[in-house]
Amino acid sequence: MTTQFDNVSVIKQANVYFDGKCVSHTVLFPDGSKKTIGVIFPSTLKFNTGAAEIMELNAGKCRIKLAGASDWQTYEGGQKFDVPANSSFDIETIEMLDYVCYYL
Amino acid sequence: MTTQFDNVSVIKQANVYFDGKCVSHTVLFPDGSKKTIGVIFPSTLKFNTGAAEIMELNAGKCRIKLAGASDWQTYEGGQKFDVPANSSFDIETIEMLDYVCYYL
Repeated sequence: MTTQFDNVSVIKQANVYFDGKCVSHTVLFPDGSKKTIGVIFPSTLKFNTGAAEIMELNAGKCRIKLAGASDWQTYEGGQKFDVPANSSFDIETIEMLDYVCYYL
Repeated sequence: MTTQFDNVSVIKQANVYFDGKCVSHTVLFPDGSKKTIGVIFPSTLKFNTGAAEIMELNAGKCRIKLAGASDWQTYEGGQKFDVPANSSFDIETIEMLDYVCYYL
């Protein structure tokens, strides 16, 4: 896992959600794709997806329950999880997450 | 003021200071310079500088007192302020700041 993205554009203004529990910046790639890089502070939140997403965790620890799932799964730094398009997931952040979100 | 930086590298992992009151990401430029883009949530903090800085505010409102100054100055989105090298400033953030920090 590389530590940086090269040859990209970055939007200066942050995305701040859930009263500051989630802060991210948007990165634009030459192929027209985008990712967000950000943090989620300890909290229990529900995220809705438009595009399908891959959440890649650089650091932290959380429990995830995808829409329709009955079980919570635990993920930590170095792991990732997939979220379907037009769906949602519940996330309990136990230790602050540092993440990269890929939009597919 | 442009809304994005082009042809840059961005460090994936966030910089989180003051128990999450300040969250930023580091942007690296082709000329070897760097900037950070971030937010400061309402709080009263003291920042120390190494290099001299320009703080450019995209949004928000704060009061600043530079080291050695007797007066507080108010700055809002669309304004910027300079901080000398090897110095410090007190910052009271009244409305969440969205900023770009230039290191000189």
